Amino acid sequence: MQTSHGFVAPGYGGVLELFDSFLRDDPKYSAQLAAYRDGVQVVGLSGGPEMAPDSVTGAYSCSKGVAAMVIGLLVQDGLLHLDQTVAHYWPEFGVHGKDRLLVRQALSHQAGLMGVEGGFPLEEFTTPAAAARLAAAAPAWEPGRQFGYHALTIGIIMEELCRRTAGETLQEVYERRIRRPFGVDFFLGLPAEQESRYRNVLYSAGPEQPWLDPLSLEGLNSNAPVSTIMELPNIRAVRAAGMSAAGGVGTAEGLARLYAAATTGTNGGTPFLNAATVDLMSREQAWGLDRSSGLDNAFAVVFMKPHPSRNFGSHRAFGHEGANAALGFADPVYGLGFGYIPQRQEDGRTPGRAHRLAAEVRRSAADLS
Amino acid sequence: MQTSHGFVAPGYGGVLELFDSFLRDDPKYSAQLAAYRDGVQVVGLSGGPEMAPDSVTGAYSCSKGVAAMVIGLLVQDGLLHLDQTVAHYWPEFGVHGKDRLLVRQALSHQAGLMGVEGGFPLEEFTTPAAAARLAAAAPAWEPGRQFGYHALTIGIIMEELCRRTAGETLQEVYERRIRRPFGVDFFLGLPAEQESRYRNVLYSAGPEQPWLDPLSLEGLNSNAPVSTIMELPNIRAVRAAGMSAAGGVGTAEGLARLYAAATTGTNGGTPFLNAATVDLMSREQAWGLDRSSGLDNAFAVVFMKPHPSRNFGSHRAFGHEGANAALGFADPVYGLGFGYIPQRQEDGRTPGRAHRLAAEVRRSAADLS
Amino acid sequence: MQTSHGFVAPGYGGVLELFDSFLRDDPKYSAQLAAYRDGVQVVGLSGGPEMAPDSVTGAYSCSKGVAAMVIGLLVQDGLLHLDQTVAHYWPEFGVHGKDRLLVRQALSHQAGLMGVEGGFPLEEFTTPAAAARLAAAAPAWEPGRQFGYHALTIGIIMEELCRRTAGETLQEVYERRIRRPFGVDFFLGLPAEQESRYRNVLYSAGPEQPWLDPLSLEGLNSNAPVSTIMELPNIRAVRAAGMSAAGGVGTAEGLARLYAAATTGTNGGTPFLNAATVDLMSREQAWGLDRSSGLDNAFAVVFMKPHPSRNFGSHRAFGHEGANAALGFADPVYGLGFGYIPQRQEDGRTPGRAHRLAAEVRRSAADLS
Repeated sequence: MQTSHGFVAPGYGGVLELFDSFLRDDPKYSAQLAAYRDGVQVVGLSGGPEMAPDSVTGAYSCSKGVAAMVIGLLVQDGLLHLDQTVAHYWPEFGVHGKDRLLVRQALSHQAGLMGVEGGFPLEEFTTPAAAARLAAAAPAWEPGRQFGYHALTIGIIMEELCRRTAGETLQEVYERRIRRPFGVDFFLGLPAEQESRYRNVLYSAGPEQPWLDPLSLEGLNSNAPVSTIMELPNIRAVRAAGMSAAGGVGTAEGLARLYAAATTGTNGGTPFLNAATVDLMSREQAWGLDRSSGLDNAFAVVFMKPHPSRNFGSHRAFGHEGANAALGFADPVYGLGFGYIPQRQEDGRTPGRAHRLAAEVRRSAADLS
Repeated sequence: MQTSHGFVAPGYGGVLELFDSFLRDDPKYSAQLAAYRDGVQVVGLSGGPEMAPDSVTGAYSCSKGVAAMVIGLLVQDGLLHLDQTVAHYWPEFGVHGKDRLLVRQALSHQAGLMGVEGGFPLEEFTTPAAAARLAAAAPAWEPGRQFGYHALTIGIIMEELCRRTAGETLQEVYERRIRRPFGVDFFLGLPAEQESRYRNVLYSAGPEQPWLDPLSLEGLNSNAPVSTIMELPNIRAVRAAGMSAAGGVGTAEGLARLYAAATTGTNGGTPFLNAATVDLMSREQAWGLDRSSGLDNAFAVVFMKPHPSRNFGSHRAFGHEGANAALGFADPVYGLGFGYIPQRQEDGRTPGRAHRLAAEVRRSAADLS
Repeated sequence: MQTSHGFVAPGYGGVLELFDSFLRDDPKYSAQLAAYRDGVQVVGLSGGPEMAPDSVTGAYSCSKGVAAMVIGLLVQDGLLHLDQTVAHYWPEFGVHGKDRLLVRQALSHQAGLMGVEGGFPLEEFTTPAAAARLAAAAPAWEPGRQFGYHALTIGIIMEELCRRTAGETLQEVYERRIRRPFGVDFFLGLPAEQESRYRNVLYSAGPEQPWLDPLSLEGLNSNAPVSTIMELPNIRAVRAAGMSAAGGVGTAEGLARLYAAATTGTNGGTPFLNAATVDLMSREQAWGLDRSSGLDNAFAVVFMKPHPSRNFGSHRAFGHEGANAALGFADPVYGLGFGYIPQRQEDGRTPGRAHRLAAEVRRSAADLS
């Protein structure tokens, strides 16, 4: 019978017990789990046949939360204003009725630009060429009037806004100002020398997938063929480019440390986002039926907000989940940074494992207060 | 085999039959049911091992509908204007972007003030101290842009608006202008001498409740610990204070009589709300996904409106259900006042017993027209 | 074992196979299926014990899509402007706060006029008398703030707008400018001499239907008694009048040909709607929870738009389904016109037969590109 590797701080025994119960109940289960409290790591666990403590793997849209930290820095630096129009920074964007769309709206899935007919080639995703094609596109709805998850294009928007305001790529800013100084083991662009640490994400392709119309909203959204969405991080070129939408790879500890470094600082250091920036970035912008999925969803600026079917944190928490049910978030009321990455795709909605673990970590933190 | 006590007027035999079928099918079922038509009682039934005709018990959020009758009087008297801002009457409320929130928005769950960190002590709920803490709080969303059921705080808002505009507590106005003159057997503040009539609401606590984060929106909403939500009316201090949100207790007859007295008058008397006020108070203000529950919901000013999953009346009906599935409403097109209180918590959504009984009462009324 | 009659063009073998599988799996299944690509018919199939290739039957709300083609012509002719108020053309409409409601809002179920108390007599539905009663009604919500499927009254609104702007009935314009010149085998008003082709729609009435309150929103919406909704096209007077909302009858080939004639032209001819009109008419106006059903829905100007639970086409597709799960739509990116009519009511939501057939037709078209 397998058990976990790693440690939990005193008072987090319930977390260890829950994680071990998952390992016991499912011999194929492999995952990493980490949490920081007030800047100190309190949970660091891994387990299962496929995952070593230092394995890095795909966390899909958790990457959006990672990239959003760069957006937070741009806002904090005064380079990017959330209530300014996108077109102010990126004039070519202001066509087809998109001229009045605000940055905070575009960054909360309200642009109506889920994709372009024909899709983007993978090698184009992180380039100005993709941004130019997206800027020229007509929105699927009146911009700002509704929202629908932009599974891949929100990364293109973040990256272009960074190029336009900082004069650098988002990946460069992330590397220089966040990943290296704070020792974050999560990459937007995995260096070749770290490749040996990578483990493929496992998922079931499904024997009889219904045809996905590449020109349907779903098809556009997944830059069809859809089969590549789950395959994305397993492709070397994707994790090398580190596309903001879904190309990040790393460890659960990396995700937890990132959210801690942003909001509480780690090991006594100053957090890289101040309280005002955290407040601006974590304020809810959109709630309701998501046009892309037809299900309920809630977004702050890029970050997901907890809501009844994604019940991962307190009312002040913000973070992002990934398609494999990976989850990274900060919960300022508890001083928590949290990271979870399962190696095999699982269900991310409440009460999935990710949310049960997140609740147990918060309960432990609350009991210690 | 148990059957009901009480009576139905000619033409309401179907109601008796349905109510008796519930008693037959479930030996533990205990409930009261009442209806007035054009001011005359046409249904008065009770049954089951736990409920006498004159037992009073908790009706939870049905209390909101009761308290809303006082709001209706304030509107009718010209003391409170639904299109005025809350801050006009209550300046301390106008902080954190809440200065432009209208009364009709605040009273339809659009304020984004589901609770405060740390919760309210029970003894504080009906006091200006609770109102002051709530007024100072930051909303969970841009006020007026969405809605989410304020399970407890909407009572605080109603009560403070009453104090500010009428110079009396909501409970005092209710007692003086509604309960006593119209003989309504439903209390916002159960007098000590009536205590012997009280029967506890029964509910199953559930052996393995998942932890409710007191700082999640759900936790704030229930002024955690959540276990008290169902326990609320069973606590003497709560029913003594008669908090507007969930502290009312009474009989089904009391609820039915209240809605009749408001809209048709009882026994030939004048209704205490005129048609214009009924129209203002019962107009739908919010519909869609409720931010608190993630489910569909519809609200007029405080009152619930019928909608596909709460299909309790005609398009002009308005009322409120409670957490035990109690239900009180008026249906002006049928001239009906309706009250139902089960003693054991049951499912209130369509097609629960409450809605089946409400349909049968309306069908009977329609057939008699 | 039954198989289909008719033909498919080369490359559409998958469509034939799927349709035949439905016939194999359900001996009672009877239906027609047709598709045009770039104006040339590529699928023409029928099968089952109750349906001949030239049978006409009811397609319920597919009629709305048919009638909307007339609205498209009025827009194209400059007689009707989508951003003008309804009251501009129809002054009597501008009461009870409906004076500012735009044509594009009224035609996307945002008027809040689901019905009138007492309902409309069937013989009144296509007359100015019905329009006058509807114009005088108070809306169920603040017009333009939300939407809810107007199952029958949207036809009254279309018809009155046509009378007011074109001076003719919608049915007359349809007959003169669309049905006859383009040889569309779908009727808004089935001539007596075609009656022998009509086959009743079959549906199960359900042994124990719960009572539908005629004054509930649902009851108003179905012009209660609801039993007539499914019975509507089976009533000679209804299909003779050809009410725009649900009175159209025809063949699947007629529906497919109509959408082709509108968007690609048929057999080399010019389409009767130009690209700008198609764009105006097919742009999404409403998305979210439908107030009438409590379920997700999406509308352009009259036409339904594909969305997760009505996944019938590409992001540019537009059309309408009917209560029996009949479906007609155009998909401009594929150059398709599509029609499907089952004779027995089935489930129209994804992944029902209609949507599976629509996907197979689009897949075949995409593979041929």
